[in-house]
Amino acid sequence: MCDLKICAARPFFFYCVISSLLPLHRQKKNPFTINTANKCTTHLEADMAEIKSWVFWRAVGAEFVGMLLFIFIGLSSIIGRSEKDQVPQELKVSLAFALAIATLAQSLGHVSGAHLNPAVSLGLLVCCQISALKCVFYILAQMLGAVAASAIVNGLRKSESLGVNQLSPGVTLEKGFIIEFLTTLQLVLCVIAVTDKRRRDVTGSAPLAIGLSVGLGHFAAISFTGCGINPARSFGPALIRNDMKNHWLYWLAPMCGGIAAALLYDFLLYPRINNLRRRK
Amino acid sequence: MCDLKICAARPFFFYCVISSLLPLHRQKKNPFTINTANKCTTHLEADMAEIKSWVFWRAVGAEFVGMLLFIFIGLSSIIGRSEKDQVPQELKVSLAFALAIATLAQSLGHVSGAHLNPAVSLGLLVCCQISALKCVFYILAQMLGAVAASAIVNGLRKSESLGVNQLSPGVTLEKGFIIEFLTTLQLVLCVIAVTDKRRRDVTGSAPLAIGLSVGLGHFAAISFTGCGINPARSFGPALIRNDMKNHWLYWLAPMCGGIAAALLYDFLLYPRINNLRRRK
Amino acid sequence: MCDLKICAARPFFFYCVISSLLPLHRQKKNPFTINTANKCTTHLEADMAEIKSWVFWRAVGAEFVGMLLFIFIGLSSIIGRSEKDQVPQELKVSLAFALAIATLAQSLGHVSGAHLNPAVSLGLLVCCQISALKCVFYILAQMLGAVAASAIVNGLRKSESLGVNQLSPGVTLEKGFIIEFLTTLQLVLCVIAVTDKRRRDVTGSAPLAIGLSVGLGHFAAISFTGCGINPARSFGPALIRNDMKNHWLYWLAPMCGGIAAALLYDFLLYPRINNLRRRK
Amino acid sequence: MCDLKICAARPFFFYCVISSLLPLHRQKKNPFTINTANKCTTHLEADMAEIKSWVFWRAVGAEFVGMLLFIFIGLSSIIGRSEKDQVPQELKVSLAFALAIATLAQSLGHVSGAHLNPAVSLGLLVCCQISALKCVFYILAQMLGAVAASAIVNGLRKSESLGVNQLSPGVTLEKGFIIEFLTTLQLVLCVIAVTDKRRRDVTGSAPLAIGLSVGLGHFAAISFTGCGINPARSFGPALIRNDMKNHWLYWLAPMCGGIAAALLYDFLLYPRINNLRRRK
Repeated sequence: MCDLKICAARPFFFYCVISSLLPLHRQKKNPFTINTANKCTTHLEADMAEIKSWVFWRAVGAEFVGMLLFIFIGLSSIIGRSEKDQVPQELKVSLAFALAIATLAQSLGHVSGAHLNPAVSLGLLVCCQISALKCVFYILAQMLGAVAASAIVNGLRKSESLGVNQLSPGVTLEKGFIIEFLTTLQLVLCVIAVTDKRRRDVTGSAPLAIGLSVGLGHFAAISFTGCGINPARSFGPALIRNDMKNHWLYWLAPMCGGIAAALLYDFLLYPRINNLRRRK
Repeated sequence: MCDLKICAARPFFFYCVISSLLPLHRQKKNPFTINTANKCTTHLEADMAEIKSWVFWRAVGAEFVGMLLFIFIGLSSIIGRSEKDQVPQELKVSLAFALAIATLAQSLGHVSGAHLNPAVSLGLLVCCQISALKCVFYILAQMLGAVAASAIVNGLRKSESLGVNQLSPGVTLEKGFIIEFLTTLQLVLCVIAVTDKRRRDVTGSAPLAIGLSVGLGHFAAISFTGCGINPARSFGPALIRNDMKNHWLYWLAPMCGGIAAALLYDFLLYPRINNLRRRK
Repeated sequence: MCDLKICAARPFFFYCVISSLLPLHRQKKNPFTINTANKCTTHLEADMAEIKSWVFWRAVGAEFVGMLLFIFIGLSSIIGRSEKDQVPQELKVSLAFALAIATLAQSLGHVSGAHLNPAVSLGLLVCCQISALKCVFYILAQMLGAVAASAIVNGLRKSESLGVNQLSPGVTLEKGFIIEFLTTLQLVLCVIAVTDKRRRDVTGSAPLAIGLSVGLGHFAAISFTGCGINPARSFGPALIRNDMKNHWLYWLAPMCGGIAAALLYDFLLYPRINNLRRRK
Repeated sequence: MCDLKICAARPFFFYCVISSLLPLHRQKKNPFTINTANKCTTHLEADMAEIKSWVFWRAVGAEFVGMLLFIFIGLSSIIGRSEKDQVPQELKVSLAFALAIATLAQSLGHVSGAHLNPAVSLGLLVCCQISALKCVFYILAQMLGAVAASAIVNGLRKSESLGVNQLSPGVTLEKGFIIEFLTTLQLVLCVIAVTDKRRRDVTGSAPLAIGLSVGLGHFAAISFTGCGINPARSFGPALIRNDMKNHWLYWLAPMCGGIAAALLYDFLLYPRINNLRRRK
């Protein structure tokens, strides 16, 4: 499902994580060279080659278009009726977000991987399945798409909420963090697991599986935090409505969840070098 | 999923689009000849050969039968209960339309492609996956099927609405256009993407993916426009009830959305000649 | 999905249909012999060989077990809450029946074909995919399973309805017939289409497709007729509650729908000898 | 989907069942040796080899993580809104449990088999698809995960119920047993059937099929018993809230259902040695 650029070897994993945290200009000067069978040259050159290609910008464009459609549909389903705090509305919104991801991942997955979620992009970076540069551009495109869609929906109906994520009454920051962390963890775990190229047993539709995982997160979290699990989705309406209360939480918790899922899957549950390490 | 007749080459694309806009008699006289490897002769002769075949008329018949069942089921689910403006009813109607397309595309996809939607037929024409003649006959069969089903359901219960698509209070023509345009765009994008024969990564059920995309459109649009995204579905009840208010919008917006999806996918996101153009 | 016994040749189709309508003893005396390449001997001998095999009785047993679980789950979901005439209840019941068929067809499909519906068995007989003898025994097993499950659920809670199918107020016999006929037609069409061994394009889960088709029928019909589309499902509660009002309709309409679907698919839409007949 | 350790031969089946009921130290001393083609040595040595491997402990860890996420999401969806005894809430909870199993079975199925249910583990033991030792450790990990998740959710909101399974008013112990027994039977039947390696006809997503089967059980049982069908899921909240009323029923009925499903499938419906036994 992903346009992958797998890291050369496990020792470079930590380099990969660290370099992703460094500013971009730093990375470009990095003279470190990987000479392995899969013919990467340097991160610098590889990134430069990548950024010059049509495929890269098409993928970034697909993330923008996908995010625009995703947020447009999600917010439209939220503001359609004003019966906000009721179970049927929760069902409708959860299913709308689930089917939106399932559909768009099916439509755009072969172009960009259809992350449509900064936490997913970050998780895949930690798994070394995308480059740091791609991760950054994807997240920017996702944020831009979410803001554009929020502006469109804001023009449609002067609704109270526009689906801005807020903590429900009685939900403290710690509780909100736990909920957003665990629901994002299961989502990114699902994304990494179904797109794992080592597996041969993923027989059904990967986009549908990921979409249902998004719906699942909404069933669990929607009554407590409105269900972010996607920083860009939280960012769009918050910026348009200029309602940034606790907004940092909707970035921190999903990003931590995405990183935790990647580490959990890639190191503990299904390590890449398990062929060497396991006895049996 | 489609009984395709792929256009010979990219340069003929514009010819293909233009000829589809010309009156039919014009096309028959067109002496233009395509002599390529895949042995098309002239559009005229190809169309004539196609229209004489049993396969063609079976496909047109399948579109009629499919549309009749689709609209019968959709409208029956709408008028079953009179709790019109409530979320559970929206859920029921969205799921009914979604499952109807998923089921009928599964049952009839190998016969006609199961477009069941003029916007889909038009989008596939723009992608050069069906001939202009087939597009015209499909749309006629779809309209006929929708009218027949609407007449049957109209006889079942003298309901107020019969599911005639109308703009909700507060939704202007511009807003309605945007909503119908974007929701149809995601639907036709999904149809084109999952039936793209160049892809090898569509592992699940394509009919189910398309059905869920239809449901998704309903979740987003049903509170605003009643959710057309299918001109024939809008046409049937409108004709039977003779309620043509704003009816042109339910043709214009989905048709534009279908064309936009085809151009977006086929030129920008996943161009057919990307093997040549891309560097990497 | 089916344990098929395909008829030898098309000319014997009508014999096959007719013999299925004759009493069973008549069939046994039938001396007619089919000597074709696929080594059928006589219907009589073939049926006798079939009825003596473990596989046959295992399949009949699977139909009984499947029907018992199906009706138990369906009726339990109906009588769980008494909010009978509301949309959320319709959603719950529709999804319960849909998922029950999807699950049981997945669990038992390789044993018996998991028809779980006399209309499906009859449709597959008309398509010559099962023998008349198997059709009769399947229908008997289905009725027995439905009665057993209805008796169990009847003991659970002294509910008013036990899910006995009745025409809603304002729905005449003719309207009820049309609704049951068309909803069963789409179901049997789906079953025949997804289990058609000539197709190579059924990529997703056939049991899920059939289950969703059952759910679809419920969305359309549940407000009007309670949604039979399955004579055995109607028969169980009606017998236990001794409420046989209009019961014949719930046999006639689905059976006609099943036959119509088989004829429509097998003769018009996707005829078996289309390789010979079609030009192109 | 499962990390199987198939028993050597059918005669050892009863040994396998019996040894699983004996205390663990007894099993270790068992000198019985299986010398067959598939190179098992003794149960003792095989179990010891298994327990020393990383793969085994990774699988146990995956059951713990999966159960923690499963119960966290399930209970969060239950306590999100307090509209407890209504149909929309039943829909939400049923779908949440269904999608949770579908997602986690997709994410963790290749690591541990993703049983996430003691009744499933026991059923697979009776089918000789996992060792007795694995079954015991899986059940312990599942219970631990469920307790941990219940403690987390208990901290989130001081809700009345925390989703503790209780019999609804009017539901006696016998009725509750029948409902839990039959709904678990269909679930374990589905698990065994879709993971049966002898089948070649399971084309869709096995995790989704199992998830929908869990949802199906909820549609049937939720109004009567709150829907256990999973002893560990019942155990977690009951322990945290110290509400053990009728708790034994939520262990006995699902466990009996799991064993019954395994025996029904493996001996009656699709016996392993049917190639020998059947005539035809």
